[in-house]
Amino acid sequence: MPIILVINGPNLNLLGKREPHIYGSETLTDVEEKVKRVASEMGGCELIFFQSNHEGQIVDKIHEAFGAYDGIIINPGAFTHYSYAIRDAISGVNVPTIEVHLSNIHTREEFRHHSVIAPVAVGQVVGLGTLGYELALRALLSTIKGVKG
Amino acid sequence: MPIILVINGPNLNLLGKREPHIYGSETLTDVEEKVKRVASEMGGCELIFFQSNHEGQIVDKIHEAFGAYDGIIINPGAFTHYSYAIRDAISGVNVPTIEVHLSNIHTREEFRHHSVIAPVAVGQVVGLGTLGYELALRALLSTIKGVKG
Amino acid sequence: MPIILVINGPNLNLLGKREPHIYGSETLTDVEEKVKRVASEMGGCELIFFQSNHEGQIVDKIHEAFGAYDGIIINPGAFTHYSYAIRDAISGVNVPTIEVHLSNIHTREEFRHHSVIAPVAVGQVVGLGTLGYELALRALLSTIKGVKG
Amino acid sequence: MPIILVINGPNLNLLGKREPHIYGSETLTDVEEKVKRVASEMGGCELIFFQSNHEGQIVDKIHEAFGAYDGIIINPGAFTHYSYAIRDAISGVNVPTIEVHLSNIHTREEFRHHSVIAPVAVGQVVGLGTLGYELALRALLSTIKGVKG
Amino acid sequence: MPIILVINGPNLNLLGKREPHIYGSETLTDVEEKVKRVASEMGGCELIFFQSNHEGQIVDKIHEAFGAYDGIIINPGAFTHYSYAIRDAISGVNVPTIEVHLSNIHTREEFRHHSVIAPVAVGQVVGLGTLGYELALRALLSTIKGVKG
Amino acid sequence: MPIILVINGPNLNLLGKREPHIYGSETLTDVEEKVKRVASEMGGCELIFFQSNHEGQIVDKIHEAFGAYDGIIINPGAFTHYSYAIRDAISGVNVPTIEVHLSNIHTREEFRHHSVIAPVAVGQVVGLGTLGYELALRALLSTIKGVKG
Amino acid sequence: MPIILVINGPNLNLLGKREPHIYGSETLTDVEEKVKRVASEMGGCELIFFQSNHEGQIVDKIHEAFGAYDGIIINPGAFTHYSYAIRDAISGVNVPTIEVHLSNIHTREEFRHHSVIAPVAVGQVVGLGTLGYELALRALLSTIKGVKG
Amino acid sequence: MPIILVINGPNLNLLGKREPHIYGSETLTDVEEKVKRVASEMGGCELIFFQSNHEGQIVDKIHEAFGAYDGIIINPGAFTHYSYAIRDAISGVNVPTIEVHLSNIHTREEFRHHSVIAPVAVGQVVGLGTLGYELALRALLSTIKGVKG
Amino acid sequence: MPIILVINGPNLNLLGKREPHIYGSETLTDVEEKVKRVASEMGGCELIFFQSNHEGQIVDKIHEAFGAYDGIIINPGAFTHYSYAIRDAISGVNVPTIEVHLSNIHTREEFRHHSVIAPVAVGQVVGLGTLGYELALRALLSTIKGVKG
Amino acid sequence: MPIILVINGPNLNLLGKREPHIYGSETLTDVEEKVKRVASEMGGCELIFFQSNHEGQIVDKIHEAFGAYDGIIINPGAFTHYSYAIRDAISGVNVPTIEVHLSNIHTREEFRHHSVIAPVAVGQVVGLGTLGYELALRALLSTIKGVKG
Amino acid sequence: MPIILVINGPNLNLLGKREPHIYGSETLTDVEEKVKRVASEMGGCELIFFQSNHEGQIVDKIHEAFGAYDGIIINPGAFTHYSYAIRDAISGVNVPTIEVHLSNIHTREEFRHHSVIAPVAVGQVVGLGTLGYELALRALLSTIKGVKG
Amino acid sequence: MPIILVINGPNLNLLGKREPHIYGSETLTDVEEKVKRVASEMGGCELIFFQSNHEGQIVDKIHEAFGAYDGIIINPGAFTHYSYAIRDAISGVNVPTIEVHLSNIHTREEFRHHSVIAPVAVGQVVGLGTLGYELALRALLSTIKGVKG
Repeated sequence: MPIILVINGPNLNLLGKREPHIYGSETLTDVEEKVKRVASEMGGCELIFFQSNHEGQIVDKIHEAFGAYDGIIINPGAFTHYSYAIRDAISGVNVPTIEVHLSNIHTREEFRHHSVIAPVAVGQVVGLGTLGYELALRALLSTIKGVKG
Repeated sequence: MPIILVINGPNLNLLGKREPHIYGSETLTDVEEKVKRVASEMGGCELIFFQSNHEGQIVDKIHEAFGAYDGIIINPGAFTHYSYAIRDAISGVNVPTIEVHLSNIHTREEFRHHSVIAPVAVGQVVGLGTLGYELALRALLSTIKGVKG
Repeated sequence: MPIILVINGPNLNLLGKREPHIYGSETLTDVEEKVKRVASEMGGCELIFFQSNHEGQIVDKIHEAFGAYDGIIINPGAFTHYSYAIRDAISGVNVPTIEVHLSNIHTREEFRHHSVIAPVAVGQVVGLGTLGYELALRALLSTIKGVKG
Repeated sequence: MPIILVINGPNLNLLGKREPHIYGSETLTDVEEKVKRVASEMGGCELIFFQSNHEGQIVDKIHEAFGAYDGIIINPGAFTHYSYAIRDAISGVNVPTIEVHLSNIHTREEFRHHSVIAPVAVGQVVGLGTLGYELALRALLSTIKGVKG
Repeated sequence: MPIILVINGPNLNLLGKREPHIYGSETLTDVEEKVKRVASEMGGCELIFFQSNHEGQIVDKIHEAFGAYDGIIINPGAFTHYSYAIRDAISGVNVPTIEVHLSNIHTREEFRHHSVIAPVAVGQVVGLGTLGYELALRALLSTIKGVKG
Repeated sequence: MPIILVINGPNLNLLGKREPHIYGSETLTDVEEKVKRVASEMGGCELIFFQSNHEGQIVDKIHEAFGAYDGIIINPGAFTHYSYAIRDAISGVNVPTIEVHLSNIHTREEFRHHSVIAPVAVGQVVGLGTLGYELALRALLSTIKGVKG
Repeated sequence: MPIILVINGPNLNLLGKREPHIYGSETLTDVEEKVKRVASEMGGCELIFFQSNHEGQIVDKIHEAFGAYDGIIINPGAFTHYSYAIRDAISGVNVPTIEVHLSNIHTREEFRHHSVIAPVAVGQVVGLGTLGYELALRALLSTIKGVKG
Repeated sequence: MPIILVINGPNLNLLGKREPHIYGSETLTDVEEKVKRVASEMGGCELIFFQSNHEGQIVDKIHEAFGAYDGIIINPGAFTHYSYAIRDAISGVNVPTIEVHLSNIHTREEFRHHSVIAPVAVGQVVGLGTLGYELALRALLSTIKGVKG
Repeated sequence: MPIILVINGPNLNLLGKREPHIYGSETLTDVEEKVKRVASEMGGCELIFFQSNHEGQIVDKIHEAFGAYDGIIINPGAFTHYSYAIRDAISGVNVPTIEVHLSNIHTREEFRHHSVIAPVAVGQVVGLGTLGYELALRALLSTIKGVKG
Repeated sequence: MPIILVINGPNLNLLGKREPHIYGSETLTDVEEKVKRVASEMGGCELIFFQSNHEGQIVDKIHEAFGAYDGIIINPGAFTHYSYAIRDAISGVNVPTIEVHLSNIHTREEFRHHSVIAPVAVGQVVGLGTLGYELALRALLSTIKGVKG
Repeated sequence: MPIILVINGPNLNLLGKREPHIYGSETLTDVEEKVKRVASEMGGCELIFFQSNHEGQIVDKIHEAFGAYDGIIINPGAFTHYSYAIRDAISGVNVPTIEVHLSNIHTREEFRHHSVIAPVAVGQVVGLGTLGYELALRALLSTIKGVKG
Repeated sequence: MPIILVINGPNLNLLGKREPHIYGSETLTDVEEKVKRVASEMGGCELIFFQSNHEGQIVDKIHEAFGAYDGIIINPGAFTHYSYAIRDAISGVNVPTIEVHLSNIHTREEFRHHSVIAPVAVGQVVGLGTLGYELALRALLSTIKGVKG
């Protein structure tokens, strides 16, 4: 059974509490429940959820995926825009990674338009709210089945 | 039953023939079949497929959506990077639109990193191949159900 | 009697329907009626109205003006910002041209501040709503009278 | 009867004498006469003419408009390109303002392409020579009538 | 016998009429005659001439070359500077293409210095007037002979 | 007893009248009264208030400070962004100067983010409304006491 | 009694030891003592001091303020220039925040001129040494009193 | 006898007092005396000296030169870098003008490297201290003699 | 009989040895032979070949062309991108010059996209390998015949 | 005996495992062994090795060097490009520091070309693989002997 | 008696022959004669004239000035814009240097506006034709007398 | 025995004489002696020293290395920043090359931060004074031994 690591970056622990006009009112736990449902609907996979406001902890977590997990879903939060350390970690462990953003980063401040993570990810799902995690999971599992199948 | 317009921009009629190392070997017809399956799987919707290499025809098509269709999925191809006319058409008809790119535009030439469509779309699905259309359809139908109930 | 070509670019067929908080509620037909009134008020001229969402059709239309018409009024819509083809058509036919924008392009998105058409036009009327077409007509007819006497 | 303030910025006192190949041969007094004729033709309004080479005097004059005048027509001359003080004055007094330029600023030096005044004006009339003042007056009076009725 | 497609972009139908101080006084038909002469001089090839002011038509035409023609000579006119759709069409059909410009684009407006087509062309012939088409043909035929023998 | 010059630049005479959603409803006289109270609370100092919309008058006033006053508090208004003349005056007279801005200039238009005065000031107090003048006075008097003892 | 969180970012634990020609010779403890005195002088408030070289710990600390504290004073040190994570934390918890810099960042290296925190702060106090913390506290307490009465 | 206008811009009244390490210890009066000596040494000319911190007064003064004076020597001080009004005045009156800077503006702050006056001046004398005025006078008188004979 | 100077810049003496995947395997002598054949085929001309790695020697050589030669073909090698001295030499001697590049400079490193020589050349032949010299010669001889005829 | 701190930044714990085509196959432990050998070969020094993926921990570690260690060798990994906190720590503790990069950062992605650490380091050793640490140690020890000698 | 080195850079050997509308009709020898006259008029100095199209020769020549000559007058021609080698030579030999340009570089192509030599020169004389050399000599001799005198 | 070419670019013949506060007091001969000692210490190699102020001579010298030498150590001096000719020479001869800079180019003028040589070098040693040559030699010899065994 494939193992998928779902990483949420800084301030996403506030999800559902902080700026609901931008991020909606679901909490991170709500999101995790929904993602689990999609996983079982798609035939099952092991899901490891991780949230941190510390860049170093996210880098450490990604290293754990090295040779051990089958895919990563990451919403890097503000780290999207400057954490070359996370970028290098992703390209270093060589595990297929999909980047998720809840809001449409292209309609917000200029600095949010650019992702330093994007060039090392397989793809992005942007602006589709918490549904984005589900879609990313579908994409990862499809790919893995295609490969492992 | 919701009506969804699926637009493919210039050169996507070559899909499956052109640069398969970037775009894969499925043809546009293959993609349409897959999208139809997802539609019926999700409870059904009317799908209108349209491909054109002519910017003006795409603008005209988007105008047809005005007050008539429930959502647009668009892969604007090269128009992504300069067609402010398509952008204005989308924001003018006020129909929720999701932008799809087959390849990860952030790992290709510099000019492909920027989308003039993105700020008027609800969101983007990028780099996930033809699966992107399916995910975009899921997202649109979820939203419409959420709204229409 | 002078002949004036009035060109409206992409999405202006939606005028009066689309984003009325930006563009007002008059339709393109309303505008044409008003422009006709000004024409007769100023002693008359032949008016040729043309709207298209297709860049190529606008280029073709401008070519018709070559050696045949006395002036052009153009609201290039989104083509304002990138259609060097229209720019070259205008400078190629060498017919005095006035550029009109309904809204104040300098208070909107950054990309709207710049016009590639402006350097080949005689002048611009910007931000004065549909009145802009009337003023442009006045300016053209004044100039033509000055020249033709 | 509406009151309109017509401001001309630095070096426009040389109008008709200076660089006639760019600015024509009418003097500022000639222009004022023509504007008066348009005013009476349109049913009348009070016109206050003001020219100064001193940025501070123009700011002071604009302040006089606050709660007292119905519109401003301004050709800011070289101040167009750097006088944030005049910009703030216009947005501070909240009187509808139209910016006029005699020549087509988009065919001249790079620095003339940008106006710091434009974002606080209702609109611009550019490149139509001294006729620009008349057109601006027409636009202001139309607006005021529309509002005052 | 090799087949060569010769494409001329927007406004080149005005050749010989428009701005002769920049583009000379030969018409497009004159140019075609000269190119034919070079073709027969070099041992013969089939020449297909196509001119359009419509970007979409040019893209469609390039698609016809796919697997059918041996080379393309293109003067993209103003599309040189922004048509990523034409660029993608050329790289998609994978037919050797030479870009021709009549005038020296490096001595004209800044925006003409940059070609979005250049990176997918084999090479460019710039500033040599209508002779450029002949030279491009020589180069294409030499290459084809080199390959086909 | 130390002498402090308090300068307010263009449009600040409109304070309390102009754009109260940005600048609040206190007038410049109200502000001066409050600053006087802080002065006496801190043991007293002579306060010279000066407001002008004329850059030259502000330069002249700063020159008066040369060898005569102990500190300058300046809200340069729009001159913040381009008056190198005021900058040179401040660095020329060599009197410790604190720059005050009522609103948070970093949340407003791009051009307001940059101050040409900042590099010659001791420091800035930004975004704290009319309280900013009081805090600047406290800072100046603390510094002067530190020096004069 | 209001609660104020005072955060000092990376390297500020070296205050009084490191580069005294830029930052002076007071230690962070000296500063805290002075801030406490101002607090009691202004009628009292609870002060929570926090220093860290770890971005993640500062984000965590700011989250504690959510719904619990009345204001934040932050000297983000080097994080000023790139920590979008801290910026998002501040705007997420929605507690009024004042940014303090000991030195005048506008007279130092180019990269120090720009603050990514500034747009989500109420205001800044810059270049006034350790006095800056006191002034920030005065400003926060004034605001809170204004609101709480 | 030729008439030469010598203009000194903002803060140059402080010459010899302000920042002597940059500008030396001669006062403006000293400089004028030296320039007079050169004038008589070169056969005589009428010299009109003018200093102002007010941009508008300098513009007015330059207008006086129109058709009346034979040359202008100007040290625009800080206006060098932004006064397009002075630039337009110089090009408007069409009197040969030489720009003088006491210090080498290319070894100072970035913003001092660029002069908006330079493109309308005949030439510049930079970095040669007060000698610069003398050299500029020599150049002007040589030119005038060359023309007037 | 016309005289044509053929200049090759730095490192082109390595042609056929250096980086054959970019520049092919013909040596400079091979190229010269081919160019001679074209010359005789076109009715003859005197050819002067010159290669140097020294910018100054190339400038000296171009000076020899002044009033003596009828055309220049130059492949400036790396000097293309920075030698304003060669540019000035070409524009100084006023001999029609065609710039040749073996490889398509628009598909290589960013710095190679820009030529400082291009604005003083008649035209460019780019990316067509050693054939480029032949085509350039054809173009020069055509032009000269056109003129001398 | 001098004490040298050897710091390795994020992802360098993967050395020898991650992207060997860029970074080689030696592990960090291998590198440390080799550095120790050079140390003893040069007469001995105490070596403290530290690796962390956490910016804050690296800042803390650098603080320990303050007044205690004689030199720092740092490979900041991805922090090279944005950690102004580490930069400030190095310049704060005032211990001579040499920056090492395994790969030639100038042949990789654009963002890797710039180091925010470089201006506070003594020097850099770039692109020489793990040998870089040895060379950096030689340089530090030479300097220290020169000073302590 | 002071020794002054007068250096002319590439293409200045063509002076009086090349582009006389920009550079006038005096030859370099004419200029040297005039400079000699000024030298003797000012009490005498030894003049060493040097012209080269070779950057390396100019660097070598400047090195000869080290500890031997009292001043340098240099018109670097096109080297003005890129020869950091000449810049380093001038700052290396530490001999006061004045930069001369015949034409007003600020009214010509963009690339000519910037001098890499300027920051190491004492000053510049620009746009005053061959008179510039005389004025530069006057300035150098005045300075030398001031120092030696 | 390996042969290593050691190249020093413009102005480095002044080493030890010129700007000792930047470059130290060792002469180039001193440096060569030290490098020879390292060579023999490492088992010997043939060293060829070359210094020139002429870019073309350096290009010629590098060509000599083609197929003949085993490594190049180059301090390109000012050519570092613009000599694409030297860059092409190095990549053309395909001999491993290490770039050395005596001073830390990242703490000096902006233009010195960028090297056009770096992308074709194996690596750089920067800011370590004349020791840099020794370290570069060690690196080259290590590499060669690794390859040659």
